[in-house]
Amino acid sequence: MQNRMKKPMRPTAVTPKGFQDYQGFDVVSRDNMLRSVSQIYYHYGFDILETAAVETVEALGKFLPDVDRPNQGVFSWQDEDDKWLALRYDLTAPLARFYAQHRNRLTLPYRRFSMGPVWRNEKPGPGRFRQFYQCDADSVGVPNVTADAEICMMLSDILETLGISTGDYMIKINNRKILDGILEIIGLGKAELDQVSARKRGVVLRAIDKLDRLGLKEVSQLLGNGRKDESGDFSVGAELSTSQAELVTAFLEATGDSSTKTLSNLSDLVQGSKIGLIGLNEIEEICSFCDAAGFGQDKIVVDPTVVRGLGYYTGPVFEAQLMFGVPDDNGQKRQFGSVAGGGRYDDLIKRFTGQEIPATGVSIGIDRLLLALEEVNSTKNEELGPVLVTVMDKALIPYYQSLVQELRRSNIRSEMFLGNPKDFGRQLKYADLRASPVAIIVGSEEVSAGIIQIKDLKLGSELSKEIETNQEWKDRRAQIKVKREDMVVAVKKILGWGSA
Amino acid sequence: MQNRMKKPMRPTAVTPKGFQDYQGFDVVSRDNMLRSVSQIYYHYGFDILETAAVETVEALGKFLPDVDRPNQGVFSWQDEDDKWLALRYDLTAPLARFYAQHRNRLTLPYRRFSMGPVWRNEKPGPGRFRQFYQCDADSVGVPNVTADAEICMMLSDILETLGISTGDYMIKINNRKILDGILEIIGLGKAELDQVSARKRGVVLRAIDKLDRLGLKEVSQLLGNGRKDESGDFSVGAELSTSQAELVTAFLEATGDSSTKTLSNLSDLVQGSKIGLIGLNEIEEICSFCDAAGFGQDKIVVDPTVVRGLGYYTGPVFEAQLMFGVPDDNGQKRQFGSVAGGGRYDDLIKRFTGQEIPATGVSIGIDRLLLALEEVNSTKNEELGPVLVTVMDKALIPYYQSLVQELRRSNIRSEMFLGNPKDFGRQLKYADLRASPVAIIVGSEEVSAGIIQIKDLKLGSELSKEIETNQEWKDRRAQIKVKREDMVVAVKKILGWGSA
Repeated sequence: MQNRMKKPMRPTAVTPKGFQDYQGFDVVSRDNMLRSVSQIYYHYGFDILETAAVETVEALGKFLPDVDRPNQGVFSWQDEDDKWLALRYDLTAPLARFYAQHRNRLTLPYRRFSMGPVWRNEKPGPGRFRQFYQCDADSVGVPNVTADAEICMMLSDILETLGISTGDYMIKINNRKILDGILEIIGLGKAELDQVSARKRGVVLRAIDKLDRLGLKEVSQLLGNGRKDESGDFSVGAELSTSQAELVTAFLEATGDSSTKTLSNLSDLVQGSKIGLIGLNEIEEICSFCDAAGFGQDKIVVDPTVVRGLGYYTGPVFEAQLMFGVPDDNGQKRQFGSVAGGGRYDDLIKRFTGQEIPATGVSIGIDRLLLALEEVNSTKNEELGPVLVTVMDKALIPYYQSLVQELRRSNIRSEMFLGNPKDFGRQLKYADLRASPVAIIVGSEEVSAGIIQIKDLKLGSELSKEIETNQEWKDRRAQIKVKREDMVVAVKKILGWGSA
Repeated sequence: MQNRMKKPMRPTAVTPKGFQDYQGFDVVSRDNMLRSVSQIYYHYGFDILETAAVETVEALGKFLPDVDRPNQGVFSWQDEDDKWLALRYDLTAPLARFYAQHRNRLTLPYRRFSMGPVWRNEKPGPGRFRQFYQCDADSVGVPNVTADAEICMMLSDILETLGISTGDYMIKINNRKILDGILEIIGLGKAELDQVSARKRGVVLRAIDKLDRLGLKEVSQLLGNGRKDESGDFSVGAELSTSQAELVTAFLEATGDSSTKTLSNLSDLVQGSKIGLIGLNEIEEICSFCDAAGFGQDKIVVDPTVVRGLGYYTGPVFEAQLMFGVPDDNGQKRQFGSVAGGGRYDDLIKRFTGQEIPATGVSIGIDRLLLALEEVNSTKNEELGPVLVTVMDKALIPYYQSLVQELRRSNIRSEMFLGNPKDFGRQLKYADLRASPVAIIVGSEEVSAGIIQIKDLKLGSELSKEIETNQEWKDRRAQIKVKREDMVVAVKKILGWGSA
């Protein structure tokens, strides 16, 4: 073998799989949305909490649904003292840790909101990232469903504030306890689980969670003997008897043309299960609180098919769905579906404290909601770039610096051209690419004469579109000369800031 | 051995070592500072970029100074495809990766700002956390020092905008090239490094970086034979000859009573080194640009002792220092020191591309700056809590819900008491703990009469301080009755929102 000189290895400049960079308008519009949402949380009486990105693995617990990776779908590593640390996968687990850690000094009810990125160690795919933003609000220490009702109303307020009208969204509510009642009736209740029943219960729950994606027919197959997917892989079913499967199916089909009708259908199904009836009663209460506060069935409805994937829910669950169609990757309009969800998790804090501390909350998937709104509003970034002070003469740079600082002190976003100034055309091209509204052009002659040339780049580009006479004339129309002391006023006039 | 039943292990509710939770005012004031700083970056013509928290280890590179941990001070783990991933330790390395990745579609100069948390796998200590916020601005593709000068001016503008007056801070500038010149003169230049010289150079650089902490005498020991620290541990010195050490010491003591004097001192020292003279000339240029734009020596000065710890700097470096004293843990006033720093790193992007792409930037340590401002301004959180709609009668909850939503719709932050309503005193105690300005009190009699009782909790607590007559009378003075339709107006009046 030949002994070759090795070239030094260069690192590859890539974002890790499933991670993404965001620029300009994308960052700003997310920031605006986070601000709007958190203002409403604050307005409803919640206080802000920011926990770190990193938690101990034991504090996070194992609650992620259907994970296709080891480590329960989190990014984790071992610390110096051998403790396992991980990036948070949601904002609820850190809240439970925080409350348990500080319970002696916190007042109940403790109501907080949080926002920030969360991380999931999942298989990345189109539109599916391993870092995304959530914005949550939770009430800790409220045993009754007033807190759940408030969250539903708040969700409605948030979506309408973001510009989604009544009718274009729906807050759908359900109760895990009703489903528990159904499972109890078919002999798969929480209390009586041998190994076989536990497996069946798990298959049933996962099948219901897939209803949205698979439809009722294929879910029925999963309740029965099993189902072959598109790839030919076979999923073993829950092997329910016909009557068992019928009750579950009836539950999934219980939605009537009003919440009242849905509740009456559900009532027929859960008679005989105490937990089921409690669940039903809680949902009735939520509906009545919402109604009284002016949130009717045009905004908030009962829907038995909403179950939410996370393992820690124990009572009412809710989901905000957008009802309008959004074009998918193939250009076909599809219902956009869920943009926020949550529910009651009365046992999550108990993990730490041993004592049951009731809690309920909601999480808004900010990136998904942004995506939906962009598709619908097709908002465009029409933001202007900075005023550009061009560099005609390197020796005049201190002079240009004084101009640009004068503009900035007058509150005008501006910069001096910092690249290689040799090619003046490149400077104007840069101004164009940055969408600069104005260029300042000064040579040594102008400095001696105390004059500033100001080029109106917006007008210039409009004039260029006219199919008329010569270019030089157009350029001149878009360019004015003013005394140095009048520069700021003249630029403001071009920018349309009041009258000059 | 006895066979005992094991209790289920409960997870411990703690933040991992070196991580912290932030609540309420602390989050809001950091957010405000990030907003102020980024507005000035934007105003200077920079555009926003947000990269993910996670990068590949190879993209991040190894540039952290003096690390007391393995893995170069970063938190890292292996991904599914065996690639090593890590949390970013600053915002500069991700910028270099981003620019290299997208260089074909980005205009030069590329000017961006970024903000967000960064993570360091360091030994945590008092006031030293493993997650903290940075807010950076960088200009990529500017070969001359106009970009560096702008950053110094911008830093000055930022500190003054945040309320730190001229005189209370100083932007200190230096140039790595001047130090390179000094080292070249004593035979430790970059070009001529055998193993022995390389070690010596390393020791000298690290010793200079410690000047702030150790003082000149102990740094001199490190330049010579070595130094024994407080614990008795001995650090081997650079073993410079007397004349070599004298030149380095003269460099560190070159600060005169003006930048002009400092530059002239430095000029005497670096004669004979080309790189040193280039460095000197760059600093002179920066000073002249700043002067022309109105940033004199009361804001920006030359200081040879500023070297900055990070390994990637190649030219001008700068640091913003607060000049006032801040009480330390022992109550003694100490100069607070550096709150921001940066410099030119012309080789960082070259790692990826093979081509030299000049770049320079600044990073503001938001948490440190906040700490300094809090110590100085002793800003207090005087924020009011939400208006509290109390629960006198559980059956009236739908009615209370309608009241609280009416308040919210009138833009008044408010909540219904969500805890156990049995003990009414506890509800008022909760209002007190939340700093609620107003409590709404309604029983079934009031509902029938269409009346609302409104308790002015601020007035109530002021009256309680008076040493006078009976408590009941005071309570009554702070409580009014209004018609239900007048509730919002009456609450606004108490809150002092315009006249009623």
